[in-house]
Parts: sequence; C-alpha cells; structure tokens
Amino acid sequence: MKTDPNCIFCKIVAGEIPCAELLADEAALAFVDIGPLAEGHTLLIPKAHYETLDQMPADLAASVLRHLPALAAAVKKATGCEAFNVLQNNGPLAHQVVPHVHFHIIPRSPGGRFQFNWPAGEYPEGRMQQLADAVRSHLT
Amino acid sequence: MKTDPNCIFCKIVAGEIPCAELLADEAALAFVDIGPLAEGHTLLIPKAHYETLDQMPADLAASVLRHLPALAAAVKKATGCEAFNVLQNNGPLAHQVVPHVHFHIIPRSPGGRFQFNWPAGEYPEGRMQQLADAVRSHLT
Repeated sequence: MKTDPNCIFCKIVAGEIPCAELLADEAALAFVDIGPLAEGHTLLIPKAHYETLDQMPADLAASVLRHLPALAAAVKKATGCEAFNVLQNNGPLAHQVVPHVHFHIIPRSPGGRFQFNWPAGEYPEGRMQQLADAVRSHLT
Repeated sequence: MKTDPNCIFCKIVAGEIPCAELLADEAALAFVDIGPLAEGHTLLIPKAHYETLDQMPADLAASVLRHLPALAAAVKKATGCEAFNVLQNNGPLAHQVVPHVHFHIIPRSPGGRFQFNWPAGEYPEGRMQQLADAVRSHLT
C-alpha cells in the first residue's frame, strides 16, 4: 500500500495519531474532522496515500466511495442536519490542505458558517462540444 | 431502474434531452454542465434516480464513483486547470437544484468565479467523541 511517512492522514491510518473513528475496512477510513465547518463534519479517506483524486485507481475509488451513502446517512441522522455537501479538494487553489485524498461530508443547517457561491456561466455556441471532445480524447 | 419522468437528468439518461456526453455505462453517465462555474465543469450521475446521496445503495455508489478519478484526470488535461473540486450537494440549503444525485467536477484556476470559505471551528472537550459515538450508532 502506498504510504507517506510525513503525511498526517497516513499517520492516522497507521494508528500513530488518534482519531474519532467512524468506520474502517481494508481500503477506507472515516473519522470526525478535528477542524469542523459544522458539527459532525466528517472525512472519508483511502488508507493508501494518493495526493489527488485523479491519481487514484478506479477500483480503490469504488472501494472507498461505496461507504459514502451510509456514512452520509449516519451523519445526517446523528446531527439532524437539513442538508449536506460532499466536497473533495485537489490542489492548494481548490483549498486542499492535507495532500492525501479526503472526502468531506459537511452538514448544512440554517445560519451555518460554510458558504459557497454559484456563479453559473454560459457557453458560446459550439464551445461545450469542443470541451466534450477534448475531455473524451483523454478518457481512452 | 428507479426513474422519475419529471426529472431533467432522467430525461437526459433516457435520451429525451441531449447532452455533451463524456462517458456512459450501465450505472453511470457523465456530461458537460450547461451552466458552468468554470470551463469544463463536468457532472457524473447515476443513471438511476436517487434524490440525495444518502439514499443510494453502496454498490451503485461504487459503480458510479469508480469513474471519478479518470474523469477528473481527463477534465484536468483537457482544461489545463491547476486544481479542481469535486462537489455533491444534497438538499436546497446545500445548493442542490436538480433532485437527482450528481457529482460536480469543478476546474479551478487563478481568478476563477467559484469560491468558498473555510471557517474551521474547534470542538469543546469531549464533543468530538460524542458525535463519533452518535454517527457510529447509525452505521450498524
């Protein structure tokens, strides 16, 4: 399994740093985020060290992310939150702080501190199809 | 397969509404978001209709989300973005607009329009463990 001795999440996986554990199996670990954006803010991570999501093998993503629905349902019940976001950040510009893939489950309630905007744009004629062609060319 | 005749994403899955398709298999569909937060903003959805993530079966989550790494890698290469977020919204208070589970891949570049804050808090002594116990009690 890929691991980085300097990574704080790898140290949690190895049991060298404690965490408030929620679930664990061969591939995945979930625990309460110690710097919460809201009560019950939860992290789901692969035990193996991958810096960003685009580097992870498909089978590992499946093994880890199969836990997301039940984990989110449990966080929702435990916190009584009205809504929630799943957020995963890749790169400093996207707010990634720990360079080990982690999925945030962030409970949302009226008056909560965490906020984002939604400045949806529009594509000029033809641009969406150009982009689709470009993405598909990298999927083969 | 669960489907909702009034759902815009179910209509896309059924081919009744066109999309700029990126990948598709039995479980999943990915396409370019027509209201992009940034160039190349992409959606990955289950073909089956589930309103929020906490309602989805684990096996379906695995089948859909195994595509996330390769899809994100392709979006990154096609757009040349420096970073990206994966975001999935559940409930209107969490910015969910279409009530059919969808994962956003949002490219991030310097000066981009999409922004969120990170107002991390702290737990008083004992509270994190209380929350962990509560979440675990709903995971059995």
